[in-house]
Amino acid sequence: MADIVSMRECRGLHVVAQTPFREDGALDLDSIDTLSAFYYKHDAQGLTVLGVSGEQGKLTPDECIAVAARFVRAAQGKRIIVGVSSPGIAQLVAVAQQVMAEGASGVMICPPAGTQTDEELLRYFDIIFARIGDTPTVLQDFPGHSGVKMSPSLIRRLVETFPQIAVVKEEDLPSVTKITRLRAELGYKVRILTGNNGLYLPQELARGADGPMAGFSFPEMLSGVYDLMSRGESEAAHRLFNTYLPLLRYEAQGEWGIAIRKEVMRQRGAMECAVLRAPGPTLNAVDMAEIGDMIARMEIGFQFDTRTLGR
Amino acid sequence: MADIVSMRECRGLHVVAQTPFREDGALDLDSIDTLSAFYYKHDAQGLTVLGVSGEQGKLTPDECIAVAARFVRAAQGKRIIVGVSSPGIAQLVAVAQQVMAEGASGVMICPPAGTQTDEELLRYFDIIFARIGDTPTVLQDFPGHSGVKMSPSLIRRLVETFPQIAVVKEEDLPSVTKITRLRAELGYKVRILTGNNGLYLPQELARGADGPMAGFSFPEMLSGVYDLMSRGESEAAHRLFNTYLPLLRYEAQGEWGIAIRKEVMRQRGAMECAVLRAPGPTLNAVDMAEIGDMIARMEIGFQFDTRTLGR
Amino acid sequence: MADIVSMRECRGLHVVAQTPFREDGALDLDSIDTLSAFYYKHDAQGLTVLGVSGEQGKLTPDECIAVAARFVRAAQGKRIIVGVSSPGIAQLVAVAQQVMAEGASGVMICPPAGTQTDEELLRYFDIIFARIGDTPTVLQDFPGHSGVKMSPSLIRRLVETFPQIAVVKEEDLPSVTKITRLRAELGYKVRILTGNNGLYLPQELARGADGPMAGFSFPEMLSGVYDLMSRGESEAAHRLFNTYLPLLRYEAQGEWGIAIRKEVMRQRGAMECAVLRAPGPTLNAVDMAEIGDMIARMEIGFQFDTRTLGR
Amino acid sequence: MADIVSMRECRGLHVVAQTPFREDGALDLDSIDTLSAFYYKHDAQGLTVLGVSGEQGKLTPDECIAVAARFVRAAQGKRIIVGVSSPGIAQLVAVAQQVMAEGASGVMICPPAGTQTDEELLRYFDIIFARIGDTPTVLQDFPGHSGVKMSPSLIRRLVETFPQIAVVKEEDLPSVTKITRLRAELGYKVRILTGNNGLYLPQELARGADGPMAGFSFPEMLSGVYDLMSRGESEAAHRLFNTYLPLLRYEAQGEWGIAIRKEVMRQRGAMECAVLRAPGPTLNAVDMAEIGDMIARMEIGFQFDTRTLGR
Repeated sequence: MADIVSMRECRGLHVVAQTPFREDGALDLDSIDTLSAFYYKHDAQGLTVLGVSGEQGKLTPDECIAVAARFVRAAQGKRIIVGVSSPGIAQLVAVAQQVMAEGASGVMICPPAGTQTDEELLRYFDIIFARIGDTPTVLQDFPGHSGVKMSPSLIRRLVETFPQIAVVKEEDLPSVTKITRLRAELGYKVRILTGNNGLYLPQELARGADGPMAGFSFPEMLSGVYDLMSRGESEAAHRLFNTYLPLLRYEAQGEWGIAIRKEVMRQRGAMECAVLRAPGPTLNAVDMAEIGDMIARMEIGFQFDTRTLGR
Repeated sequence: MADIVSMRECRGLHVVAQTPFREDGALDLDSIDTLSAFYYKHDAQGLTVLGVSGEQGKLTPDECIAVAARFVRAAQGKRIIVGVSSPGIAQLVAVAQQVMAEGASGVMICPPAGTQTDEELLRYFDIIFARIGDTPTVLQDFPGHSGVKMSPSLIRRLVETFPQIAVVKEEDLPSVTKITRLRAELGYKVRILTGNNGLYLPQELARGADGPMAGFSFPEMLSGVYDLMSRGESEAAHRLFNTYLPLLRYEAQGEWGIAIRKEVMRQRGAMECAVLRAPGPTLNAVDMAEIGDMIARMEIGFQFDTRTLGR
Repeated sequence: MADIVSMRECRGLHVVAQTPFREDGALDLDSIDTLSAFYYKHDAQGLTVLGVSGEQGKLTPDECIAVAARFVRAAQGKRIIVGVSSPGIAQLVAVAQQVMAEGASGVMICPPAGTQTDEELLRYFDIIFARIGDTPTVLQDFPGHSGVKMSPSLIRRLVETFPQIAVVKEEDLPSVTKITRLRAELGYKVRILTGNNGLYLPQELARGADGPMAGFSFPEMLSGVYDLMSRGESEAAHRLFNTYLPLLRYEAQGEWGIAIRKEVMRQRGAMECAVLRAPGPTLNAVDMAEIGDMIARMEIGFQFDTRTLGR
Repeated sequence: MADIVSMRECRGLHVVAQTPFREDGALDLDSIDTLSAFYYKHDAQGLTVLGVSGEQGKLTPDECIAVAARFVRAAQGKRIIVGVSSPGIAQLVAVAQQVMAEGASGVMICPPAGTQTDEELLRYFDIIFARIGDTPTVLQDFPGHSGVKMSPSLIRRLVETFPQIAVVKEEDLPSVTKITRLRAELGYKVRILTGNNGLYLPQELARGADGPMAGFSFPEMLSGVYDLMSRGESEAAHRLFNTYLPLLRYEAQGEWGIAIRKEVMRQRGAMECAVLRAPGPTLNAVDMAEIGDMIARMEIGFQFDTRTLGR
């Protein structure tokens, strides 16, 4: 239970980590060290590995465990949360147990497509928690991906029934109003972290979210916005956010967005190779030039902004 | 409210009626008289017009009203329930009001695709009933078609909140266990009629259903099974059902099943032309021969059964 | 055929128009005049009325025709394209014929959910065009909404088979790469306009799109970006786009985004009342303050930008 | 390639095997021997293990391999085809390679939900076959389960492009007309086996299918119908089929049908324990009595039929 209490303290940037592959699509475990260092340098308080944008669905369970274990080894004392969602409960439970044995801080679970009605969702988590015991858990509310909608009142019931749920990752659009409602229904029984690639971050934080759980090729923006908002420097937070928004919105295009993100991160030295596992998009020369332009423009804006406004 | 009370009395066969078209796909309103006579001759206590297998989705609202009005004119004092489900509430309400003005006994509503969570479903019907007032209503529970699942506890809440719901058309598989649960939760506050083309009728009746609301090219089987079950002649009911089962299962193949049903009904003189509106299947010579064989075999079985068993 | 040729000339901003309602949800036809003037003042070359964000799905066919007719009356010689997509072909055709009779320039069609395989899609449009004849048509490629994916090679086959398709509204993500492929496959046989609330507009134009077909509460940004890009002033275009991006991304949140957009447009005098038809979101004080902040910040940025950069 | 040639010879009954569990949901590998014997006694020419009704989705990959290996050990020289469909390609490939190493005869693959357009489907199988090489493959065409529709012309392209596809398991409704079309398009390049719980078996065989690939608690009916049809004894085949049809249709109710099937098979001595893995239905006393009645009635009918008609 100590771990659940500790998970309930989480706030600030939790990066949804990429999974690095080699050109041939094999796992590149060594790059996980570089990648972790990159994230922590930019103030990640923890990582969520093997989320949707971590290409979890393309790995075998054995690979999932190897990746999680390597992130744990490179954790530098930070929280490692492992995405274990799966259409099958046995696979979810097996992976959850093994990554916890490897030293993970907790798991993230999104109910599988087709789990409808409040009744079925309660039953689903009942089966899960009977098996994974007191594993600290992030409940992922992401109907845009899973097709599963959970009302605020159901989320309250889940949180009250299953104390293992320490965090809700809220990405049901409009996330802003749902965060307002969840805060009203739940108080501070759980942390609320936000996803959707950080696309609504300043507003979500103003509504009471405890931090971003998202990926972006410039994680310093996500931690920076969080810090500025925490210190009450709302205008500076918005300015920082807006400077990066053109690229942020560009990375928020499903798998193709991930391809962009990995390429930018490769250029920044965070990983050796930007490739996605098949079936996934590959970038051509036109795409690369487009990214280059976007970053150049963003950097000019950023320098300009810094110079002019004294940030 | 008198109408809701009367709707709450409904039991026995309510045929989900076909909509007759001409060769060119135009409505054939005149055939509605012949068709109605055919259904009533075979002991229909009422009709559900413009259900899924009545091709409602292929008609304009004006056509829906014309079809419903004609069935009302030909009703011979029987109940005419009109399917008004629609992705849009305004269209649903407009059609509901107009068919009630034309003399319909009530409407049937299935919540539209994408209406998830107990909360949203309650809100949906709240909006609907605020507009259609005390229109007697059949709640259609048909997730196989709509993608919307409703738990027994939600159905109880809907029935308790909206007294207009006089009947539940139960076709969530396995319908048998859901009927058992609904009877336990609801008692006899509402009638339960069953769908799924009648494919589980004897078991559903034994579980407490009040009758079939289904289409079949031999409606005398549906009414016959209901009557036999009502009189406690369970074995005879099963025997009758099983004799027709090969064709019944054959008609339970979505739109192609409807094509088969209309063709058999045409051969039996119930309608002039068996055509479905586009896009819909058309039958070729191989299909026609297959149907012919199935009916011939069924009739031999039936005569044999009758002779040997003295039914 | 003259009309198809003319439709094939369309480029520049085509606003996806809102539909104005009164507080009680009734149509507010009079506001269509004000609204049209607002759009044309901001350089709309045409309007697409009754698109997804025009709440088409919540109107009856009669209401659709009334709305389209009023937009035509207020068109000031501009192109009025009417969204006629419907799960049912008869309704689609009836509305298409009537809005063309009212003077619309063309229709927009997105194939309905469930229409899968190249074969089915070809058959679907075959049935449609057999009935609507030479009505100039925008093919809407919007799998995020419809669930229907169309490959570039299928789109080419559709365009080659049905000369009525004068424009493709491309909003399959990543739209940028699909636009590149469509230009390669199609040349300039059709125009390509882009949607997704304009969220990727500068890149889409650079890839060869002919203009935005999107809604935004500041349509002057959409036309401005188009004009700047057309004149080769790419940097200025990006700067303009980026200034508005925080609000643009905020309006790109499905129905809630539409609620935001209508409220901002109400504040700008474009319409009397910002209400959406039920079931739709309503804004509360927190939401209103959030919008206010976002616009204030955007305007400061805009003035600042203008002053500093001499735009 | 020898194996592909051999797979292309398959005809007759291929049972979609159940997976036996203990009361606590653990795999019961020992029961696989009893179960295999039961299937072969009733004339199975091969088994398809870990299909949809084999609860594949509830097993971990390691469990899948253990189950497949045990079925191979108990195969008595019969063909063991292993269902390896998975949302993730790496998992599909890993399991496919391992079960082939364990001695399986081939694998069965259904493309995952969301794989739309002819282009994407060709690409999907291109990636798969680049990795599993010349593994003999059953292409499962089952849109009712997967949501993926494949037109006959696409299936022809797949078969012509990937010689590994030795069999099509055809269960897209109406399967009868699709079988007719596939035979016309493909000739005898591939075998066509049929699924849908065998619900349309006599008609499918008459249309040119090579046998059932289905589960049923009385597999002797499936092999019997196949044999009678092969010998041209169509009337006897139909009579046999129709006798079992009431139970057959009862087992064709998704997961609940599997619960029924396993219970009947347990009563027949085919396995120790009828339990399904969670989340799955459990049968109560009412359900058990209903099954009992159905079987009793079926057996009376069968004896009666045998006695009277001299079968």
